[in-house]
Amino acid sequence: MIEEKGILFILSGPSGVGKGTVRKELFDQATELKYSISMTTRNSRPGETDGVDYFFKSKEEFEELIHQNELLEYAKYVNNYYGTPRTYVEQTLAAGYDVFLEIEVQGALQVKENFPEGVFIFLFPPSLEELKNRIVSRGTESSDLVLNRLKEARKEIEMMDAYDYVVVNDKVEHAVSKVQSIIQSEHLKRERVAKQYKKLLEDEL
Amino acid sequence: MIEEKGILFILSGPSGVGKGTVRKELFDQATELKYSISMTTRNSRPGETDGVDYFFKSKEEFEELIHQNELLEYAKYVNNYYGTPRTYVEQTLAAGYDVFLEIEVQGALQVKENFPEGVFIFLFPPSLEELKNRIVSRGTESSDLVLNRLKEARKEIEMMDAYDYVVVNDKVEHAVSKVQSIIQSEHLKRERVAKQYKKLLEDEL
Repeated sequence: MIEEKGILFILSGPSGVGKGTVRKELFDQATELKYSISMTTRNSRPGETDGVDYFFKSKEEFEELIHQNELLEYAKYVNNYYGTPRTYVEQTLAAGYDVFLEIEVQGALQVKENFPEGVFIFLFPPSLEELKNRIVSRGTESSDLVLNRLKEARKEIEMMDAYDYVVVNDKVEHAVSKVQSIIQSEHLKRERVAKQYKKLLEDEL
Repeated sequence: MIEEKGILFILSGPSGVGKGTVRKELFDQATELKYSISMTTRNSRPGETDGVDYFFKSKEEFEELIHQNELLEYAKYVNNYYGTPRTYVEQTLAAGYDVFLEIEVQGALQVKENFPEGVFIFLFPPSLEELKNRIVSRGTESSDLVLNRLKEARKEIEMMDAYDYVVVNDKVEHAVSKVQSIIQSEHLKRERVAKQYKKLLEDEL
């Protein structure tokens, strides 16, 4: 193993694009990836374990962590905070594991500000038509809401420029294979590994 | 197909590292890659076809092309020129094909100057010991020559900084799979494809 530190990969994209499905399939195949564990102020549910499903914190603790810039991103939904703790990510990377974060576009842009060395992958819908179908087929949205979410999706697609890669989610297995290529090739980048290779050489001389 | 233009990939590395073997195995698997056809002033041999095996040119023609900066790189061996014609590469890329060039380090550095948008992959020996074994096992070199080539190899490894990726050639099939990941992920880079994705979006609105 020439490299010691892991890489933070962020999979993001408009809602309805299928981020969760791609992440799930990826984790079924790439078992050495570590999923970023979120921090939340909501109560734990039966069966949930602190430090496994979530890091559970009080509202005061969470706000103190925000204040200390200890969250790579966070948001508040219905009176509860959700966020990505910096320390867990950094410790996992330092231990040599890649960390994988699947997240909405707004959150990804926050991570980009706080952790620009991450690798940002934008999941793109095969077409706006298809994105609409996917949003509609969730079945829970009125047609006004669907239109709003499509408008939102178009805005999010405009934010693509903050990302390093774009993967079209035409078929889950294709998208997963592309994400795997990105993960592998990022580990081969010269600026990441040249120092170690040169050291290897010096050790042999 | 979101993208129209191909990418020039350059596989290089110290002599003895196994560039030819990796390239051969890669081409057995990736049939849509186009191999860069070299230009030479040496006479064609029986069975060789102009424009397939080589582009055969007279010395005067070749020197005129050098003068016109029509070669991405060239060198002279035993009174004959060998080089990589820019026009063939550019036409093949424009037709949407990736072009693959396997070449010595000195040549790769020339290509880098003339075609910096290429993707440069450095093939690294698993160890200097192994590199020595490979050079020796070719069986045609005296021990002085082997030492010289090792010294040369160490110098070439120092030139790694001009490259985009480093792939260790521990096993051919691993190296090939890594090169394939690089080829795939380079096509997913946002700066290459964002314009086309945004156009796609506009066309749908």
